[in-house]
Amino acid sequence: MQAVTNLVTGASSGPQYLTGDKPAIDAFIAKFDVFLFDCDGVLWSGDHLFPLIPETIAHLRSLSKRLIFVTNNSTKSRADYAKKFHTMGIPCSEEEVFGSSYSAAIYISRIMRLEPPKNRVYVLGESGVEQELASESIPFCGGTDPLLRREMLPEDFKRIADGSLLDDDVAIVLTGLDYHPSYLKYALGMAYLRRGAHFLATNTDSTLPSAGTLFPGAGATSAPLVTASGKQPLALGKPGQAMMEAIEGKFAFERARACMVGDRLDTDIRFGIEGGLGGTLCVLTGVSRKEEFLGKGRGVVPSAYVDSLGDLLG
Amino acid sequence: MQAVTNLVTGASSGPQYLTGDKPAIDAFIAKFDVFLFDCDGVLWSGDHLFPLIPETIAHLRSLSKRLIFVTNNSTKSRADYAKKFHTMGIPCSEEEVFGSSYSAAIYISRIMRLEPPKNRVYVLGESGVEQELASESIPFCGGTDPLLRREMLPEDFKRIADGSLLDDDVAIVLTGLDYHPSYLKYALGMAYLRRGAHFLATNTDSTLPSAGTLFPGAGATSAPLVTASGKQPLALGKPGQAMMEAIEGKFAFERARACMVGDRLDTDIRFGIEGGLGGTLCVLTGVSRKEEFLGKGRGVVPSAYVDSLGDLLG
Repeated sequence: MQAVTNLVTGASSGPQYLTGDKPAIDAFIAKFDVFLFDCDGVLWSGDHLFPLIPETIAHLRSLSKRLIFVTNNSTKSRADYAKKFHTMGIPCSEEEVFGSSYSAAIYISRIMRLEPPKNRVYVLGESGVEQELASESIPFCGGTDPLLRREMLPEDFKRIADGSLLDDDVAIVLTGLDYHPSYLKYALGMAYLRRGAHFLATNTDSTLPSAGTLFPGAGATSAPLVTASGKQPLALGKPGQAMMEAIEGKFAFERARACMVGDRLDTDIRFGIEGGLGGTLCVLTGVSRKEEFLGKGRGVVPSAYVDSLGDLLG
Repeated sequence: MQAVTNLVTGASSGPQYLTGDKPAIDAFIAKFDVFLFDCDGVLWSGDHLFPLIPETIAHLRSLSKRLIFVTNNSTKSRADYAKKFHTMGIPCSEEEVFGSSYSAAIYISRIMRLEPPKNRVYVLGESGVEQELASESIPFCGGTDPLLRREMLPEDFKRIADGSLLDDDVAIVLTGLDYHPSYLKYALGMAYLRRGAHFLATNTDSTLPSAGTLFPGAGATSAPLVTASGKQPLALGKPGQAMMEAIEGKFAFERARACMVGDRLDTDIRFGIEGGLGGTLCVLTGVSRKEEFLGKGRGVVPSAYVDSLGDLLG
């Protein structure tokens, strides 16, 4: 291990490699009361569960650690996500899940607090976004509306230009990962932004890990709106600290006694470091490689890393 | 008119306003043998022809000017475009049209010259791209293939990850304006780019003028691939000078006696200035406003401007 000063974490040495080092693992775990977990790339990749995950989660629960599953996945609501945990054989309550769609809904309902009737949200995303908006009683349109999953017709250009296809109550454009993009949906989103709608994103991850490789993420499927409007959305997912504040507000924990566990340096680990958490743990089963934080010229550096989350069992 | 030095064009005064000034119009026209025209935003907006366009084109032809219609619109082939001119009541031959899809096809067949069988092009775009690739005998896939206009299925993630849904002969990803984007198409394009395919774009216009307003352009519909791959495409449309060289190679004209006419400072006018043409004329019927090139802190500045192309009739 290199004894260099770590400018990002403030630690005086490089990240600690925990895999296979039982005493170091036990000491690391003992430092924290709360573990914030990223899910995709940490617990599973798509529908593929990584080895020893249920056992590792059960082990941490047996040590009375509080577990919070923080995900930028906007396509699922907290309820959907808790179901996925059960399907995967990991007991989990809906209350332990904190997703970027929920984070966005909280931001809209409790921070923005727009007055009706001009408070509708135009959604570019899947049902997870819609469910969380509904849970906060926020009116919305777009999203999974089957009427929008069609070709752009010549009259649509005219009806968007003259406003007759637009909803005058839309005040916010909210983008998440959209598996059903269409030119019509992008054209509508662009028109609302040109009319002055607020631009929010559940998250802006450029890629989505699945099936052992990478696919376009929410930042990719919302990129046409960014390019076409020339505006950047406010992102309500990791690594944005609006999400950390919402999590802390809900769960009331001591940041110094919390550890963020994730596979992405630029979202998960950065989220923990910028949030002033007591520690960050990078797992190498997802996007980031150890070469990115070891050696010279490093950017975001975790406190510790393991090859796989199951290594925490020792 | 402001007597300021124009750093971009090198002219010693600001742009000349020609509307309503018959002697200035005649003198301006007399300086050129060749006029390169942008089309959308200059001749028409979508299907709306601007006033006096056929008459203005006929007037320039009567003065023996050579006319070249240079368009970044990638959805139409040269043949399609010539048909649109006829529909609009403007006589025009296919040979007078130079589109960004044709420019890309020329670049692939005559500059890149990839050896078969690994020379197939994965197209994210419409039939104009396909027709021009076919005209240069370049093999392609993707594009308007109806099999790709469907939902991304769970097995698609696996089949893209294991390569079974990919075509091993693809060596180039070429993006143009796509009115039928889908997650599957973006995921395939991303996979080819991750395998090392060359990344080309017919053009990267962020917006598309139509029906008097702006819609997402080719740069917007291809943005998911840029975001997801972290790579930038080589653009074969305006303002890229690869297109100017191809036009000059085909039409053999003297640049000092040529004028670029367009509505966008950042594509059309920049294209003419960087190409060292004798002049540039901005028309105010499209994207750019005169405030962008008049007054202080100006960027790209045309030699002259008119409210509408029809003003050239004087």
